[in-house]
Amino acid sequence: MTSVAIAQLDQNVRTWLQESRDQILAAMASKVNVDTKTNRNDLVTNVDKANQLFLIGKIRQAYPQAHIEGEEGTSAKAADLTGLVFFVDPIDGTMNFVRQRANFAVMIGVYENGQPLYGAIMDVMANAVVTGGPDWPLQLNHKALSAPGDPELAAGLLGVNGPMALKNKLHLGDIALASSGARMSGSAGMEFNAIARGQLVGYVSYLQPWDIAAGLAIGRSFGLIVTRPDGEPIKLLEPGIVVAAMPRAQEQILLMMNELD
Amino acid sequence: MTSVAIAQLDQNVRTWLQESRDQILAAMASKVNVDTKTNRNDLVTNVDKANQLFLIGKIRQAYPQAHIEGEEGTSAKAADLTGLVFFVDPIDGTMNFVRQRANFAVMIGVYENGQPLYGAIMDVMANAVVTGGPDWPLQLNHKALSAPGDPELAAGLLGVNGPMALKNKLHLGDIALASSGARMSGSAGMEFNAIARGQLVGYVSYLQPWDIAAGLAIGRSFGLIVTRPDGEPIKLLEPGIVVAAMPRAQEQILLMMNELD
Repeated sequence: MTSVAIAQLDQNVRTWLQESRDQILAAMASKVNVDTKTNRNDLVTNVDKANQLFLIGKIRQAYPQAHIEGEEGTSAKAADLTGLVFFVDPIDGTMNFVRQRANFAVMIGVYENGQPLYGAIMDVMANAVVTGGPDWPLQLNHKALSAPGDPELAAGLLGVNGPMALKNKLHLGDIALASSGARMSGSAGMEFNAIARGQLVGYVSYLQPWDIAAGLAIGRSFGLIVTRPDGEPIKLLEPGIVVAAMPRAQEQILLMMNELD
Repeated sequence: MTSVAIAQLDQNVRTWLQESRDQILAAMASKVNVDTKTNRNDLVTNVDKANQLFLIGKIRQAYPQAHIEGEEGTSAKAADLTGLVFFVDPIDGTMNFVRQRANFAVMIGVYENGQPLYGAIMDVMANAVVTGGPDWPLQLNHKALSAPGDPELAAGLLGVNGPMALKNKLHLGDIALASSGARMSGSAGMEFNAIARGQLVGYVSYLQPWDIAAGLAIGRSFGLIVTRPDGEPIKLLEPGIVVAAMPRAQEQILLMMNELD
């Protein structure tokens, strides 16, 4: 039993995301300042930072008891997942935000005592918000979304991390070739959004906690399986490789990862 | 000097594309019948075929002197490029059309005596039509679009054909890793559309005549370089590998393709 009313949480988060969107679009109309983080392709902008501060402010006001785990490092890392925890990715796909001005997302995943409660992913330019959770229905812009099907890997499109697939790490290149097509968008949020809409059968990537928290929670509303390559569950405070897919394809991906040598 | 008034051609094509779109959206609301062509991932639907017939009818009516080269084989293959030739791809990215119901395009490229006159690519679900040619400005939905920049390969996102990149054919995997990120959309039209909008620095794939005719023509409005891997110009009636990119990145891609061994 959760201490949080999910209907109210859903309404809060959808409101904050719309406000985030307005601010992001306004910021895009003036100058975006870009810095690199760990390497030349790991970017952060003033817009990422401003949106994280905005969302943290809203969360603290509405849920003062919550811990907040955000991508842009203004919040202390949670030592454990006790209590209510919000994972915030203020702009997921910052490279796309900078170079494409499209194909990026804002994500919020909410957990209580380590269990997912609720997730929300906004495709900002399309103004499309996917929401869901174990006890909350899969919705697109607050309207019911049909659950995706469960095709074989060979009959589904697979979202993949570029460097992992191109280097064939864990046979991901071979696995992508066994699907009906590889897709690379450069944003975990866009990939989870596409899975929820039935456009991809799964997604394999190396992800940080804020990259996966929302998608994992939403996936609970439609039977998405999310594990490490060895089939173990995700430990949310640790980054690592994630295999998120509908059941048949997920099983086939794990088999190929572990048996192809 | 061309025998065709390009302003009238542009108006005709944009009108036909809007009518195509209406018919495609209507067809998506009823049953789409899917067949395979050369292999399990080479699809054709009743919607591809109907839209090709529709566009051929419009072209024949307005330009009775034209030859028409279409993807779905209802028209004889042109023996040469003499006179006026329309290349028609009624649905580019049929896999995406079937599995994603998004991320597919309709493309028309118009040539006279082998020289590009005009191209148009419609992202159907986004209702975004990019047009241009050597003597026609780059436009998005009939409004001027700024020409893309000319960054180094390392500072641009590169659209790549999935199997070629995953198999590292012509070092395309390595080249993608040298860019600021690989993107795979599964539709040549979507990739050319993204290049024209400055969202990708280039695109490398194996393409048929109707996959490239529109993009090559539009590219003439903004300095896109389009060659074979050896730097030779495209012979439009032959399928083959295409390197389409802004000048600096195009030069770097050709160098890596030819010197990496």
